[in-house]
Amino acid sequence: MGVVSAAAAVAAMNLVGLLAFAVAGSLKGADADLDPFGVATLGVLTALGGGTIRDVLVGRVPAALRSTGDVLVVLAGVGVGLLVAWALTGGTGRVRDHSAFLVADAVGLAAFAASGAAVGADAGLSAFGVVVTATLTGVGGGSLSDLLLTRTPVVLREDFYATPALLGGAAYVVAAAAGVRGATATLGVAVGVFVLRVVAVRRGWSLPTV
Amino acid sequence: MGVVSAAAAVAAMNLVGLLAFAVAGSLKGADADLDPFGVATLGVLTALGGGTIRDVLVGRVPAALRSTGDVLVVLAGVGVGLLVAWALTGGTGRVRDHSAFLVADAVGLAAFAASGAAVGADAGLSAFGVVVTATLTGVGGGSLSDLLLTRTPVVLREDFYATPALLGGAAYVVAAAAGVRGATATLGVAVGVFVLRVVAVRRGWSLPTV
Amino acid sequence: MGVVSAAAAVAAMNLVGLLAFAVAGSLKGADADLDPFGVATLGVLTALGGGTIRDVLVGRVPAALRSTGDVLVVLAGVGVGLLVAWALTGGTGRVRDHSAFLVADAVGLAAFAASGAAVGADAGLSAFGVVVTATLTGVGGGSLSDLLLTRTPVVLREDFYATPALLGGAAYVVAAAAGVRGATATLGVAVGVFVLRVVAVRRGWSLPTV
Repeated sequence: MGVVSAAAAVAAMNLVGLLAFAVAGSLKGADADLDPFGVATLGVLTALGGGTIRDVLVGRVPAALRSTGDVLVVLAGVGVGLLVAWALTGGTGRVRDHSAFLVADAVGLAAFAASGAAVGADAGLSAFGVVVTATLTGVGGGSLSDLLLTRTPVVLREDFYATPALLGGAAYVVAAAAGVRGATATLGVAVGVFVLRVVAVRRGWSLPTV
Repeated sequence: MGVVSAAAAVAAMNLVGLLAFAVAGSLKGADADLDPFGVATLGVLTALGGGTIRDVLVGRVPAALRSTGDVLVVLAGVGVGLLVAWALTGGTGRVRDHSAFLVADAVGLAAFAASGAAVGADAGLSAFGVVVTATLTGVGGGSLSDLLLTRTPVVLREDFYATPALLGGAAYVVAAAAGVRGATATLGVAVGVFVLRVVAVRRGWSLPTV
Repeated sequence: MGVVSAAAAVAAMNLVGLLAFAVAGSLKGADADLDPFGVATLGVLTALGGGTIRDVLVGRVPAALRSTGDVLVVLAGVGVGLLVAWALTGGTGRVRDHSAFLVADAVGLAAFAASGAAVGADAGLSAFGVVVTATLTGVGGGSLSDLLLTRTPVVLREDFYATPALLGGAAYVVAAAAGVRGATATLGVAVGVFVLRVVAVRRGWSLPTV
């Protein structure tokens, strides 16, 4: 796979992650009984937070602030989230544990972990740096929105939230070392992270407490 | 208005915002019964936080770390805040709801929203990027100090706190598109944000909950 | 002392800080009954957080993401922390008030305050900028891990936690103005901060509340 298709894969992952996390973040905001502005804030922050952290770390002006397309996707995702919240609960009750939320969140986690790994590798980071950008891009937005709600971030509450993103970043590093790069590596990591996260939620996996 | 007066307007807005938020932040710290160091920390963080986030996002070394003048202004503001807290309450009671706090906070919000929009536009950000830098520059410092106090940031608690800053950023974008730039746009946005924030507080405006 | 020895001193301070904060952070995580991933997260965040904030502020790609050695040191520190937690408590009880934790934390604070001051000065920051980078490098990692645990950061809870780092940064500035630079200044600041922090803890120093 060439550079173009690799870039296209990262761009595609980014769009998927933006949409999925905008939905997941706005559902989280609706559950917290925030007003529309607060819901939109959580949706935007959840969708753009991880990538912004990633870009700041690698010394780029955040893509979210340079392109307009990303934002339209996120706002569309917020709208979808509000509709889903209303459709599932009639405006009452919680959707956080509904599979719609869990799937959207897992998709965002997977897409951003993959794009984070690719961006980190392109920036010439160390193996650890790639794992960190994969993990932070995946969990950064959700963690920021949790902090805004003064909750212990899901990254600390759920064992297999950050773990799949971290393993995805490690897998990207191993794949790159093995000569597997570009779109193949990016898409493979995304699928692996998504499957691992969904299975972890379904099976209720957790690590032993120290 | 030329580039010089535009730069002067941004610099003036910045000074006003630094002083106002240093006062507001130290009053907040005094209300939280923090020791002088904690009060100064909140004042400095509230005053310098938003601009630092803005500069990091547009890839600049934060002005707060490069210039000494800004800091002297902030420390002066902290001193004023401590005197105000003492004068209003004799060292007891709360000043958070006192108009002195609300006005200082609204002035800081307005000045930083305007300077954030101008800096974002100068950095060649997208329309959304300008709105974000305006909003984050305006609410960033207060949000960081709220997080330090482990409170849900005012940005989520009060509907019309971030909203005026966001609308100010949008107004700056529209004005620029209409050919209104420089000092006129910057000062106009600052006045608009201040009026909107003060009226919102006085009238107790809020958005409907989802 | 020449540039080389100065650089060597900063590198040495950095290694010491990484190891000490990795131990202190993982002990904090163990006390919070986090799972191994959470403990490692707190250890890594505590060790790498301050330096990452420092590097982002001065416009560098964080050293933590560029070098692999730092990370191995941190992971070793996490391992040591887990062993210490187990050895001191048999896996039960708290180690936060144990001198092993306090000493490790004071060593990290001192080492990072010194390296932060040196990096800030090298980046050509203002005197205040050097004080800020010294303070944030020293307290940033611990504050981030406290925020992840949704605790009011120790920087606000304990008067003489940030204060020694701040005074260390100020001392570095004064020393530089007096012509004392390089390794001498860096090591001197580290020793001073460590002593000040340990004495403050032992004596239970605190500042009067406003």
